[in-house]
Amino acid sequence: MSNLEQLQSYLKENQYDAAFITTPDNVFYFSNFKSDPHERLLGVMVFKEAKPFLVCPKMEAADAVNSGWNEEIVGHLDTDNPWELIAQAIQSRGITISSLAIEKSHLTVERLESLQQIYPQAKFLRLDDKINEMRVIKDEVEIEKLRKAAALADYAIEVGCKEIAEGKTEMEILTAIENAILAKGCKMSFETMVLSGPKTASPHGNPGDRKIQKGDMILFDLGVIYEGYCSDITRTVAFGEPSEAQKEIYNTVRQANENAIAAVKPGVRAMDLDKIARDTITDAGYGEYFTHRLGHGLGISVHEFPSVTGANELELKPGMVFTIEPGVYKADVTGVRVEDDVVVTKDGVEVLTKFTKELIIL
Amino acid sequence: MSNLEQLQSYLKENQYDAAFITTPDNVFYFSNFKSDPHERLLGVMVFKEAKPFLVCPKMEAADAVNSGWNEEIVGHLDTDNPWELIAQAIQSRGITISSLAIEKSHLTVERLESLQQIYPQAKFLRLDDKINEMRVIKDEVEIEKLRKAAALADYAIEVGCKEIAEGKTEMEILTAIENAILAKGCKMSFETMVLSGPKTASPHGNPGDRKIQKGDMILFDLGVIYEGYCSDITRTVAFGEPSEAQKEIYNTVRQANENAIAAVKPGVRAMDLDKIARDTITDAGYGEYFTHRLGHGLGISVHEFPSVTGANELELKPGMVFTIEPGVYKADVTGVRVEDDVVVTKDGVEVLTKFTKELIIL
Repeated sequence: MSNLEQLQSYLKENQYDAAFITTPDNVFYFSNFKSDPHERLLGVMVFKEAKPFLVCPKMEAADAVNSGWNEEIVGHLDTDNPWELIAQAIQSRGITISSLAIEKSHLTVERLESLQQIYPQAKFLRLDDKINEMRVIKDEVEIEKLRKAAALADYAIEVGCKEIAEGKTEMEILTAIENAILAKGCKMSFETMVLSGPKTASPHGNPGDRKIQKGDMILFDLGVIYEGYCSDITRTVAFGEPSEAQKEIYNTVRQANENAIAAVKPGVRAMDLDKIARDTITDAGYGEYFTHRLGHGLGISVHEFPSVTGANELELKPGMVFTIEPGVYKADVTGVRVEDDVVVTKDGVEVLTKFTKELIIL
Repeated sequence: MSNLEQLQSYLKENQYDAAFITTPDNVFYFSNFKSDPHERLLGVMVFKEAKPFLVCPKMEAADAVNSGWNEEIVGHLDTDNPWELIAQAIQSRGITISSLAIEKSHLTVERLESLQQIYPQAKFLRLDDKINEMRVIKDEVEIEKLRKAAALADYAIEVGCKEIAEGKTEMEILTAIENAILAKGCKMSFETMVLSGPKTASPHGNPGDRKIQKGDMILFDLGVIYEGYCSDITRTVAFGEPSEAQKEIYNTVRQANENAIAAVKPGVRAMDLDKIARDTITDAGYGEYFTHRLGHGLGISVHEFPSVTGANELELKPGMVFTIEPGVYKADVTGVRVEDDVVVTKDGVEVLTKFTKELIIL
């Protein structure tokens, strides 16, 4: 059953007349059309029985068709009132709206008021949780795209490692990575991070003009989008022989990553994974330097459900995809993070990112 | 009168108990604290008489203080309910809320419902237009920041021109520009564009691996943020002697830019400027290749009010700042755009971007 059909079943079950989806990543999920409309209106209107339609700026209509959308498109110019066009498209289906499901965490008050003007008697119901519940489980087609996105991330790390040389700046290495991915026809899924030396210890540092020198650890955090699906990988490598203290931190973080991955299977809770990694790091004496959650869901968005925190009681199910990314940030030694993307399978785990976790010494 | 004081006067005039500002650029306008909170709650609560407070993630509280915010900060952890903290902070001021002005074009339905839970009897009123009306007129302090942002944009174009050489890629030139601005301690205000040869004819093209060659026209579109204020400049230069046809397009676009700028003064309408530039281009026979509006407002946001279109009847007033950016995109000849940032003065115009508009032949 397609995503649209699943949503239609949900509308029927709940006796909702329609659903209006406006979060760009969710529009992509239901229409395969990815667009950043800025302040312009973009949405998919889905009905219990009738054919859905896409609302988008008129100039994007051709892109939507090329993306594979073959239902009606309600294109609007900046001079149009898109809400009137929506009302007409609904009326032309012979449908009256008395209940409309909306994404309350995305739709603005202004847009709700526009809908209320068209349908003053309608009830507006929360759709967000249903879509999150659907998106959190990936099907085989989605997982295959995530595999390819992860393979591109592996390749990007390989490019980055080859670029490392005395005197090169972080930004130069970053540019080489991004050019290599661009040459594959893809884009990065977020701002690439290349941090060297003491900067590895700041988990949200900015790459800059710092020149690489012997004795640096270098942290890459990056991801690639493949057909709308995101990867996210972190590797930390050494330029020149690392100190014993650096090796100890590296091995601790790697062990935490591997212990958590080994525990992934249906029925385990997200919080259990966080605890396993955190215990490994705490037992080695670095607990206070692991300052963030273990991971986050991954898919159309680079951060989505499930959040892998010490407080999330969610039980893992087959098809969930998330990162496992323990880190230790000790300013006087080094920062290290080792991050993989994993899928929960029927009886365990598949690790999508495959770049080696042996400590690379360049 | 400070921005906050102006807003307080507005609340008094209209008998609104408070205003809750949540658009990040507007939060900056009222608090001087610039932050991208993603899904976390960021806002400024302003009252008729009582002291305002800032709501932000607890980990950003120190940044807010460093930005100059010296009123109360309501910091929240991911485990807190920020709406309860807001209710407490309001109650501690002895204030009851029966009317609350909100940004309806930004606040989500979910957040409105959270406010309605705290204040079920309150009326929620639209604040958006008042803030737009305030922000569209820049004061001297803001204009000085815009002058400096524009000077940095001029410098970035200079760097770009110096980088042009046979065989260099667009991305290499782009990186050199961005590194030069980074070295000045600033960031770009949007994704830098360096387009060469046939790619100049696509107004929203992406810089890539194309290598510069003799005979190319090269289009730079970029901007820099200085103390929170954005510039935006476009220059098109030639690498090697351009053809007569290319020169004709260049001179037409430049003339359109200069004619529109010469007409800027209080009382002229935004649409008049668009018409002047469009007429210049149409009279030269290129009307169909000028496919976008003449310009957009500029300030804390790189696109803000006023929009300089053929339909905007808004009368210019002193302190308005916007771009003038006519373009001609003729695929078989070249694309050219020439963009400046201008301020409406008491009796005319000040052009902030000063990089030459003579056709540069490198």
